[in-house]
Amino acid sequence: MIKVSVMYPKSLDGTFDMNYYCKTHIPLVGELLGGALKNVAIDSGIAGGAPGEEPAFIAMAHMTFDSVENFQEAFGPHAETIMADLANFTNIQPQIQISEIKL
Amino acid sequence: MIKVSVMYPKSLDGTFDMNYYCKTHIPLVGELLGGALKNVAIDSGIAGGAPGEEPAFIAMAHMTFDSVENFQEAFGPHAETIMADLANFTNIQPQIQISEIKL
Repeated sequence: MIKVSVMYPKSLDGTFDMNYYCKTHIPLVGELLGGALKNVAIDSGIAGGAPGEEPAFIAMAHMTFDSVENFQEAFGPHAETIMADLANFTNIQPQIQISEIKL
Repeated sequence: MIKVSVMYPKSLDGTFDMNYYCKTHIPLVGELLGGALKNVAIDSGIAGGAPGEEPAFIAMAHMTFDSVENFQEAFGPHAETIMADLANFTNIQPQIQISEIKL
């Protein structure tokens, strides 16, 4: 199993509509990726590790797939549609990472 | 529910023993935090979002707790022991973030 993490860095002039993200964007992604997408987790950043510190990421989505190939096959045909929707909830360029799930 | 993400940035001179992390460090954390720790996920970074790009984080642990207070009560008394174990598997200073779990 692999995890695709889409992480939105918090910045002073960064905007992020968590309501749209949870209620419209992620359901759209789920619909487009279909059964290849095994699980989605959404995190809303509250704080950093030190007292008073801001979180590094205002939002993170962690999506699990059986393999990198499964993710690429499911995402490729819809990449443009999904990326175009970002302008509807944020002006932040997300950081994307693919990980192997160890636990 | 809240999530504490401990993220180890990948760097050229950064070292990370994933075997020790999964088999010794995370079980130690689980034992010390006890029932307050509801779930742990461990990710091992494979790649970034662009072809040939490195992952931002070589490893991430995502730990869920009922509340920030529950995390602080469980972690506080063992913080020193847990942080001292880091030298056994990495020379990287982790980035820590607390998030509200939206999904």
